[in-house]
Amino acid sequence: MTVTYSQDVTTSTWIGNFWKLLFRWRGSVYRLIWPDLLVYCTLFAIISLVYRHALDETQRVTFEMLSLHCEYFASFIPLSFVLGFYVSIVVGRWWEQYNSIPWPDTLALHITAGLHGHDEISRKMRRTVMRYANLTITFTFAMMSPLAKKRFPNLQAYVEEGLMTENEKRIFENFRKRTNQPDYWMPLVWATSIIARARKEGRIRDDFAVKTIIDKISDLRGTCGGLLSYDWICVPLVYTQVVTVAVYTFFASSLMGRQFLDPSKNYDHNQIDFYVPIFTILQFFFYVGWLKVAETLLNPFGGDDDDFEVNYLIDRNQQVVYLVVDEMHDEHPDLLQDKYWN
Amino acid sequence: MTVTYSQDVTTSTWIGNFWKLLFRWRGSVYRLIWPDLLVYCTLFAIISLVYRHALDETQRVTFEMLSLHCEYFASFIPLSFVLGFYVSIVVGRWWEQYNSIPWPDTLALHITAGLHGHDEISRKMRRTVMRYANLTITFTFAMMSPLAKKRFPNLQAYVEEGLMTENEKRIFENFRKRTNQPDYWMPLVWATSIIARARKEGRIRDDFAVKTIIDKISDLRGTCGGLLSYDWICVPLVYTQVVTVAVYTFFASSLMGRQFLDPSKNYDHNQIDFYVPIFTILQFFFYVGWLKVAETLLNPFGGDDDDFEVNYLIDRNQQVVYLVVDEMHDEHPDLLQDKYWN
Amino acid sequence: MTVTYSQDVTTSTWIGNFWKLLFRWRGSVYRLIWPDLLVYCTLFAIISLVYRHALDETQRVTFEMLSLHCEYFASFIPLSFVLGFYVSIVVGRWWEQYNSIPWPDTLALHITAGLHGHDEISRKMRRTVMRYANLTITFTFAMMSPLAKKRFPNLQAYVEEGLMTENEKRIFENFRKRTNQPDYWMPLVWATSIIARARKEGRIRDDFAVKTIIDKISDLRGTCGGLLSYDWICVPLVYTQVVTVAVYTFFASSLMGRQFLDPSKNYDHNQIDFYVPIFTILQFFFYVGWLKVAETLLNPFGGDDDDFEVNYLIDRNQQVVYLVVDEMHDEHPDLLQDKYWN
Amino acid sequence: MTVTYSQDVTTSTWIGNFWKLLFRWRGSVYRLIWPDLLVYCTLFAIISLVYRHALDETQRVTFEMLSLHCEYFASFIPLSFVLGFYVSIVVGRWWEQYNSIPWPDTLALHITAGLHGHDEISRKMRRTVMRYANLTITFTFAMMSPLAKKRFPNLQAYVEEGLMTENEKRIFENFRKRTNQPDYWMPLVWATSIIARARKEGRIRDDFAVKTIIDKISDLRGTCGGLLSYDWICVPLVYTQVVTVAVYTFFASSLMGRQFLDPSKNYDHNQIDFYVPIFTILQFFFYVGWLKVAETLLNPFGGDDDDFEVNYLIDRNQQVVYLVVDEMHDEHPDLLQDKYWN
Amino acid sequence: MTVTYSQDVTTSTWIGNFWKLLFRWRGSVYRLIWPDLLVYCTLFAIISLVYRHALDETQRVTFEMLSLHCEYFASFIPLSFVLGFYVSIVVGRWWEQYNSIPWPDTLALHITAGLHGHDEISRKMRRTVMRYANLTITFTFAMMSPLAKKRFPNLQAYVEEGLMTENEKRIFENFRKRTNQPDYWMPLVWATSIIARARKEGRIRDDFAVKTIIDKISDLRGTCGGLLSYDWICVPLVYTQVVTVAVYTFFASSLMGRQFLDPSKNYDHNQIDFYVPIFTILQFFFYVGWLKVAETLLNPFGGDDDDFEVNYLIDRNQQVVYLVVDEMHDEHPDLLQDKYWN
Repeated sequence: MTVTYSQDVTTSTWIGNFWKLLFRWRGSVYRLIWPDLLVYCTLFAIISLVYRHALDETQRVTFEMLSLHCEYFASFIPLSFVLGFYVSIVVGRWWEQYNSIPWPDTLALHITAGLHGHDEISRKMRRTVMRYANLTITFTFAMMSPLAKKRFPNLQAYVEEGLMTENEKRIFENFRKRTNQPDYWMPLVWATSIIARARKEGRIRDDFAVKTIIDKISDLRGTCGGLLSYDWICVPLVYTQVVTVAVYTFFASSLMGRQFLDPSKNYDHNQIDFYVPIFTILQFFFYVGWLKVAETLLNPFGGDDDDFEVNYLIDRNQQVVYLVVDEMHDEHPDLLQDKYWN
Repeated sequence: MTVTYSQDVTTSTWIGNFWKLLFRWRGSVYRLIWPDLLVYCTLFAIISLVYRHALDETQRVTFEMLSLHCEYFASFIPLSFVLGFYVSIVVGRWWEQYNSIPWPDTLALHITAGLHGHDEISRKMRRTVMRYANLTITFTFAMMSPLAKKRFPNLQAYVEEGLMTENEKRIFENFRKRTNQPDYWMPLVWATSIIARARKEGRIRDDFAVKTIIDKISDLRGTCGGLLSYDWICVPLVYTQVVTVAVYTFFASSLMGRQFLDPSKNYDHNQIDFYVPIFTILQFFFYVGWLKVAETLLNPFGGDDDDFEVNYLIDRNQQVVYLVVDEMHDEHPDLLQDKYWN
Repeated sequence: MTVTYSQDVTTSTWIGNFWKLLFRWRGSVYRLIWPDLLVYCTLFAIISLVYRHALDETQRVTFEMLSLHCEYFASFIPLSFVLGFYVSIVVGRWWEQYNSIPWPDTLALHITAGLHGHDEISRKMRRTVMRYANLTITFTFAMMSPLAKKRFPNLQAYVEEGLMTENEKRIFENFRKRTNQPDYWMPLVWATSIIARARKEGRIRDDFAVKTIIDKISDLRGTCGGLLSYDWICVPLVYTQVVTVAVYTFFASSLMGRQFLDPSKNYDHNQIDFYVPIFTILQFFFYVGWLKVAETLLNPFGGDDDDFEVNYLIDRNQQVVYLVVDEMHDEHPDLLQDKYWN
Repeated sequence: MTVTYSQDVTTSTWIGNFWKLLFRWRGSVYRLIWPDLLVYCTLFAIISLVYRHALDETQRVTFEMLSLHCEYFASFIPLSFVLGFYVSIVVGRWWEQYNSIPWPDTLALHITAGLHGHDEISRKMRRTVMRYANLTITFTFAMMSPLAKKRFPNLQAYVEEGLMTENEKRIFENFRKRTNQPDYWMPLVWATSIIARARKEGRIRDDFAVKTIIDKISDLRGTCGGLLSYDWICVPLVYTQVVTVAVYTFFASSLMGRQFLDPSKNYDHNQIDFYVPIFTILQFFFYVGWLKVAETLLNPFGGDDDDFEVNYLIDRNQQVVYLVVDEMHDEHPDLLQDKYWN
Repeated sequence: MTVTYSQDVTTSTWIGNFWKLLFRWRGSVYRLIWPDLLVYCTLFAIISLVYRHALDETQRVTFEMLSLHCEYFASFIPLSFVLGFYVSIVVGRWWEQYNSIPWPDTLALHITAGLHGHDEISRKMRRTVMRYANLTITFTFAMMSPLAKKRFPNLQAYVEEGLMTENEKRIFENFRKRTNQPDYWMPLVWATSIIARARKEGRIRDDFAVKTIIDKISDLRGTCGGLLSYDWICVPLVYTQVVTVAVYTFFASSLMGRQFLDPSKNYDHNQIDFYVPIFTILQFFFYVGWLKVAETLLNPFGGDDDDFEVNYLIDRNQQVVYLVVDEMHDEHPDLLQDKYWN
């Protein structure tokens, strides 16, 4: 579920309320990073113990040379740069994905404004068009998010949640037998046909409303397609691999390079033996944390703490659209003179 | 309240009028940073006193080793980079949030142009539609800004400020008993119904005007939803934590690493004892100030000096819309020949 | 006035025609930077003279220590980074502001196409609507630009320039007595009423044209409001202060740190005494020049060489709109067979 | 074909599932980089062998001087920076290109909603308009992608795939004899004429639908033109050359500079002879990998693993549009009461 | 002319086909950079000769001190940073300029769809409107591009190329006598009048088409104005100067700083005398090449190899529009059953 913390940072006055954010666990970097950190520290400790207790003097000198070599050359990996640019791209895509989420609300507003009548057919039409919109949106979510996929493993699940009728299910099953093209947009074509029929039957009174509604249906299809394209076209694998390899080789080499060498030998920056490599751990925390930002955001429809809550959205859409196009249709409170009248 | 200073920087001629900006207090970095700086300096002084007066010679040597170690390894934290990228993202979101603020003006212009009639019902319709627009906008603000929330703690407050009638309040109360879905958009659905009725009664003379007005109402809902999404989907907590941890551990380690060591021992860059670590303080000022930029902008609807003035906006909207749709409706000064006529 | 030089850089062939740009004075970095540079050099010279002639040997050693300290620690201020990111933001805003400048041309085109008739009332309507558009644009400019403000210090000035009638002035005066809300958009509400009346009187023949014209009027109001928001919501003061403080403290510390120390003492990088710190001056030129880019662009409606020429725009708008909606209305050259006919 | 991996990174929990991505071959950086790496390692080995076995002592000293020189000055090439900025631009263009791909779906939705009738002429019209849309899209793809070009080497191929009739082929042939202007947009002009005729014959019932359909046809032409402009206007060759030269000269110089020099001579960072330059190889992997990101994305319509699957798109478009405008035309499942009815 | 190379980089498989791009001359960095490089190398050689042969020992020591000083302080100029940010801005503007190029195609499509009739007047109207569109576009190009300016030095040239009639020329001449306002938009006002007349005469059958066509004409004017604004409002001169000065002073100082000093004196990094400063030349190539990217792109309507081919566009527009609105008007191939019919 999305981790919302903007209410905690409304003012920035006393010694940084960013502090508060540091002590959160849900959605935190600690939660993401601790397994990696544990593995890293264990390996570091093992190597340290080998150096201190298992090696003879000649081996130790070799070890020290190797360590200095690793330390020196590790600085050649421009981690900040490549992470900075990569994370920028991933964060950009993440926010665009949020903005690409399709919402049925606009269509609902136009349906209730344009498709008149309180008889059963009119009500059915309004509700069915909106159900089709929700169905397409839910198909889209189920293609992107493993959580939604789990909730809707097959067509029967849609029927059970009331998004599809048995009859419609059969049509989908027939379609899927014939071709393996994506069919998430089919309900919108039906919705278009219903609108055309509603115009013919006079339930929609003017051509404008028809045009506007068809436009919104077509926008909805575009938005769903746009969202799917983030799933289909990932950040190029090459880039992700380059960044991941860079981070992990950097820390692999720091397992050697950051060992505390015998202070008596007076190597540069090794005058004292601290046993616990506190700055290396911080650096690990920092860089791997940065990489985890990218990992979390790469597929924001997954199950991470910071991912978008698709199941909530699916429920919300169903409740809201029926409310707008059916219950609240043509209803408004009495027109009264407001407080500032004259 | 927003800190406006663009009138102070209209020309850039004599020795930088940016100087003038340095001596501002409201909305200034000094005001944001002084508590942190005070804490930092106090801690620095305590550690310095311990080193100078409380430690014996062996302890001092250990202290000096530790200090050099801290100084050396602190440079491994790429503060500029991560702050630069992070602040870019936050500043980008901040400006987008400003651009996402919903304004009722466009709708008002279309209402006054399209919904004709000087009788009471027509006037009520125009005023009520605009009141509903303002109500939705105010709901949105109250969800985002603690200042607006304080002004509108419950539905009664809306009634008292004239944004809602008692009748409407009851409808909201009933709705909220049934579900906990956001209901900020409900007044816009009512507005849609009023428009449909106005067309039916001939107060709106053509289908175009209906379509345009519904479009604007739907745009307004979209803008409100868009603004709320900045509240719902924050900059990922992981990123904020990584940056904050980086800055604070950097300065925690500088508490040790930047101590002036005994000049007689001739450590690198410690030839002279200045007592006051002027450059470290500047660096603190600089980096923590940069972080404060992000803190201030992360939720621009809070109570910081630089935050958006939502309460002013709420008042302004109420005044302007009634002026446009009621008082100025169908009025314009006499048509005269202008100065350049022929 | 805007400094246009794109015609000087059309081709890039022989030893860089960027050279030519270096010898420009108007809008140049030299013109912006020389007072600062003069002050800096004077201070540098004074400190240098004190070091060379006024200090005894002990004081000189202290001075030298201090100088080395300043030099070493000045490198901790990441000037390039923070300037790079800050200037990117400012340049981005500057160009967006240019793109937010409202133009009356589109409205004029739609008015001349839609509002027919050669009688006096029709002509008055067309001219008045465009005058109102120009009036709103000019109000907007006068709120942003000190140059336009100087030209239009009060409502009387608008009357004298033919943008307002005496009658309209009185309405504005009454309005301003009642409230201190911005009123720049009022003429556009009047324009809307005129359009509604023109439709009623049949001067506009179809509802489409009405809708389109109202849309354009509403766009114009939006553009004006958008432009004003750049004035109202500046780049956060905090950010500007952090950057300015960083640049000036860097150069304050370089006043000490870049002094040429006694070569006989053989300090690092002080083997030779050049008297004139040519590279420090270049660095000053470079970094302060970069900051000046930001200062110039922060309010592009000011009086800098590079700022937008609002007064020219005001004159141009007045001439063009009357030409389009009145003189050229319904006129076009005879239809002839063109050169490639068949 | 596009390499999709977003389903592999839905959650970021246990020790980074980015690990999994490292062991992919299709679309991987390994597959792109191995030939370069092989050449590089071979050259490195040859030079190493020459140094160790073929040179006499004087030559070896010269070699060592040269090597140290190369190592020192190679650091002057700011590879990270220029790669970071260049790759940002290329990645930006790559994603914009994806977003510029024309889809016939929106047009199909509007055609089925607006062009009525089940007689043969109506069906032919709907199908032909969509065929023309697909034809233009396919022409566009064939101009950009060598894969599509291979599938459609000449006009006959279009006829064989059913995208063109013999008659239309003749028109194209005649046109191409007369001029060498691009003619990919011609089918859309025909589509426009068909729409005009359909309105005249009453198959489209209102002017709105005509306007909307013409708008969509015109959008489609714009999108195709926009996509072609990415082909016509590449990232400036100058920039690509500068980056490529920088990367390759860096590694050319590292062939000398990263040789392990005789440890007995005690050169800096050459205390130990590792034979295999593991860090240099990593650096090569890293920087050349980053460059390969750019190479892959520069023309995303090529045959790289990560490129867009145009042939799939062409097939998909043909299947979908006939389905929408013909088979599903005016059809929708029976209107039933949904699960939440009342 | 534009240098297109995307067809050369369709796949990225064997040892980088970026190699191929390195051996291009047209539009290459070599072609842009060689004069600068020649001058630089000559100056370097002269200074080198003076040092080696013309100076006595004392002078040589001073020279060496100066050289070391230059080398040390040149590193203070953050060339990568400022070039990176500057080139990003310039590349961004360059691509936006390409996207701002006005195309008459959309207007042509709407004209042919909306303005009916095969009689001479209708044909004249369609052709004349499109000629006016082309005339405005060509005026715009002639204001921006020296190549187009050369082709159209005066109004007579437009007449000769068939873009203007003698009659229209006279109107322009009269206008230019009265005012020096830009008049590139005048033909579009005439086009608007023609459209209004066509509606009145029934050649355009509905108000929609009129609105759409006027919209497109108005868009075209907006696009032309937008393009001109890139010419009018350049990247601020200050920024360009700062960057240029930075690059040239860097290399001026490197003329001294990168001289090979007497190896016998054993200065750091001067152990060996290579005579040819291969790495300095590479650095020159690299940084000046990067600057040349900016120079080339700053005015993409100039005569550089990589600039947009305006003259080609002018010819192309003339051919295409007459084809669309006249020759192909109302024509489409016979409607046949396509291959997949049933």
